[in-house]
Amino acid sequence: MDRTRPTPGQMLAAMRAANPLVQCITNYVAMNIAANVMLAAGASPAMVSAEEEAGEFAGIAGALTINIGTLSRDWIGGMKKAATAAGKAGKPWVLDPVAHYATGFRRSVTAELVALKPTIIRGNASEIMALAGGPASGQGVDSGDSVDIAEGSARALAKQHDCTVAVTGAVDFVTDGRDAVRIAGGSALMPKVTALGCSLTCLIGAFAAVTPAYPFGAAVAALATFAVAGEEAARKASGPGSFSPLFLDQLSALTDETLDAKAGITIA
Amino acid sequence: MDRTRPTPGQMLAAMRAANPLVQCITNYVAMNIAANVMLAAGASPAMVSAEEEAGEFAGIAGALTINIGTLSRDWIGGMKKAATAAGKAGKPWVLDPVAHYATGFRRSVTAELVALKPTIIRGNASEIMALAGGPASGQGVDSGDSVDIAEGSARALAKQHDCTVAVTGAVDFVTDGRDAVRIAGGSALMPKVTALGCSLTCLIGAFAAVTPAYPFGAAVAALATFAVAGEEAARKASGPGSFSPLFLDQLSALTDETLDAKAGITIA
Amino acid sequence: MDRTRPTPGQMLAAMRAANPLVQCITNYVAMNIAANVMLAAGASPAMVSAEEEAGEFAGIAGALTINIGTLSRDWIGGMKKAATAAGKAGKPWVLDPVAHYATGFRRSVTAELVALKPTIIRGNASEIMALAGGPASGQGVDSGDSVDIAEGSARALAKQHDCTVAVTGAVDFVTDGRDAVRIAGGSALMPKVTALGCSLTCLIGAFAAVTPAYPFGAAVAALATFAVAGEEAARKASGPGSFSPLFLDQLSALTDETLDAKAGITIA
Repeated sequence: MDRTRPTPGQMLAAMRAANPLVQCITNYVAMNIAANVMLAAGASPAMVSAEEEAGEFAGIAGALTINIGTLSRDWIGGMKKAATAAGKAGKPWVLDPVAHYATGFRRSVTAELVALKPTIIRGNASEIMALAGGPASGQGVDSGDSVDIAEGSARALAKQHDCTVAVTGAVDFVTDGRDAVRIAGGSALMPKVTALGCSLTCLIGAFAAVTPAYPFGAAVAALATFAVAGEEAARKASGPGSFSPLFLDQLSALTDETLDAKAGITIA
Repeated sequence: MDRTRPTPGQMLAAMRAANPLVQCITNYVAMNIAANVMLAAGASPAMVSAEEEAGEFAGIAGALTINIGTLSRDWIGGMKKAATAAGKAGKPWVLDPVAHYATGFRRSVTAELVALKPTIIRGNASEIMALAGGPASGQGVDSGDSVDIAEGSARALAKQHDCTVAVTGAVDFVTDGRDAVRIAGGSALMPKVTALGCSLTCLIGAFAAVTPAYPFGAAVAALATFAVAGEEAARKASGPGSFSPLFLDQLSALTDETLDAKAGITIA
Repeated sequence: MDRTRPTPGQMLAAMRAANPLVQCITNYVAMNIAANVMLAAGASPAMVSAEEEAGEFAGIAGALTINIGTLSRDWIGGMKKAATAAGKAGKPWVLDPVAHYATGFRRSVTAELVALKPTIIRGNASEIMALAGGPASGQGVDSGDSVDIAEGSARALAKQHDCTVAVTGAVDFVTDGRDAVRIAGGSALMPKVTALGCSLTCLIGAFAAVTPAYPFGAAVAALATFAVAGEEAARKASGPGSFSPLFLDQLSALTDETLDAKAGITIA
């Protein structure tokens, strides 16, 4: 990481100080846990998606996140208006193309959203590989591929769309097409809790809202926050059920010093 | 409080004995936690919102609550039919105008709902001040104002619409335009858990269903229940994540004697 | 139970080994907890409901579940396309007719869905009795009747529609019109946690995906899994709030040996 750039801990402190308003257009499964993740970490989420107000609200919010997990026709207009408004206002926005490879409907809407130039794309390995045009073996919303084999796809995708790409899994990978890092940590319990990836997408938005000129760093800081808090929570958890409240507690208690001390970030 | 009136504890006992069916039209973020709050406290929630049945169901339920948190066009018809039907049937209904000041869409729909004469309006300080026509500094769904500066707005709003107004925050304020009380308690963790305010709106509906002629008391009893259970839960919680299950446990375990003994209600 | 048939424990092991993809069309209240139940138990849920893709996805998934808890007009097309596609592909599908007796809208849509020949119907006693054409005293989504008085209705319904019917309550009842069992266990805390029944419907789909030729056994295995995990969780729970994470932990930790040893299944 560039030493002239803020560390994840410094970015966490700045994010909490700013308490950024983030417009989260996310799926029904993620709505509650994503809002709780945002509040615990120190951001101010607003789940505003209706076509009548999504564009107007994108002008108010510091960042926007769009997740297509439970996509339906009526949501597409709001997604596009919000992404367009964020783009015009120079606000960062994050795309989470959940299981976009699974159906023609998802592929088509994802292509339209990608054309609106997301600042950051976050997905699992199968989603990123498929989005880069390669083969992928996801099952529904779950990745069938490991992150390491998606690194080339992530780099290609980042260059193609001039954006940051974050691939999450056992070890995460983030690239903006030039720089790239891997982030270790987290817990095997995390994929057993639904919508944590979707919640992470929202948290990337919170960091990006505060450092809009450094989306690569925002994505890395958000992923590192999840990895360290997840590792701490897993130590006390007895299973996926007890993990969730512990994880929110750890997100809230995590200090910027601990984040910088424990974040397992290596240059890729 | 008027000694000829039931205490919050007596109202809690009556509510549990009645197990009132409450129609909750609420937002996607709140759906699950609000239903769990209702069940834990002793009510029977039903999240029925479709235009095709919302009015019919309002005739069956003991009370109705409407929350515009994740408002979209398709929900407006159901909200209006339910509110109209509740009004015709003499059933109490509670309005939660989440972030109504944020966009033109919200302001417009909120004005239509207010015109349907809610029995009780619950909001945070920014929402109540803005609804009374004053300046407010909310950010998204979060209040930027403290409750004490919203007391005048709450009194004015209650008189203007002949309803009860509940402003929730660190210390709550409830007024029906004549009487007014403040309710202390709760925990600083509560605004760090999403949708507890929305859940409280549903619980006000549960109390109002059982004492429809005393909406002021219903609001006070529901807020006191939240304040005491929240204070108890916070004692054992390690953060916002562990707070939630503890809070539901406390709502369920709270006795009417404890509620009356610990409720921090003062006349304002 | 027929000894030539797999036991619930054997079916749990098979389900986990297969990690079946299950398309869950469920209500807003249940979305998150149902997905967490599925992941904890070992299945792969996908909440895919839009009319544009629900049919296509039903061809990919191993089973489909449809729950009308928060029914709205826009969801009906997706439900019907998915059920039709599942039927054509010979995939099992499970219907959860939540509070179908409460309004004309629900009754009408439920009749259309039943006509699409669900493999399994799961409901509480009031729902099953009303679906069989009898009187029922449900309040909103809560049963007003006990399971034992619904056994005759369940048998009649199973014969009428050539399907398996599961009635859940303090003691569950499952029949395919010929065989029938009762399943004891669980906890009085379970009806105090919202959407556990809806989550169970999804889990029945997971078992049915793996043994499509034995829907009666799939329903019994899923119900036994819930009953044993629920009983274990209740031992440590302090109320409905702490029950939920403990229940997910128990679902995840439950071994097939423990399931077979503790399942309280008796022939009815």
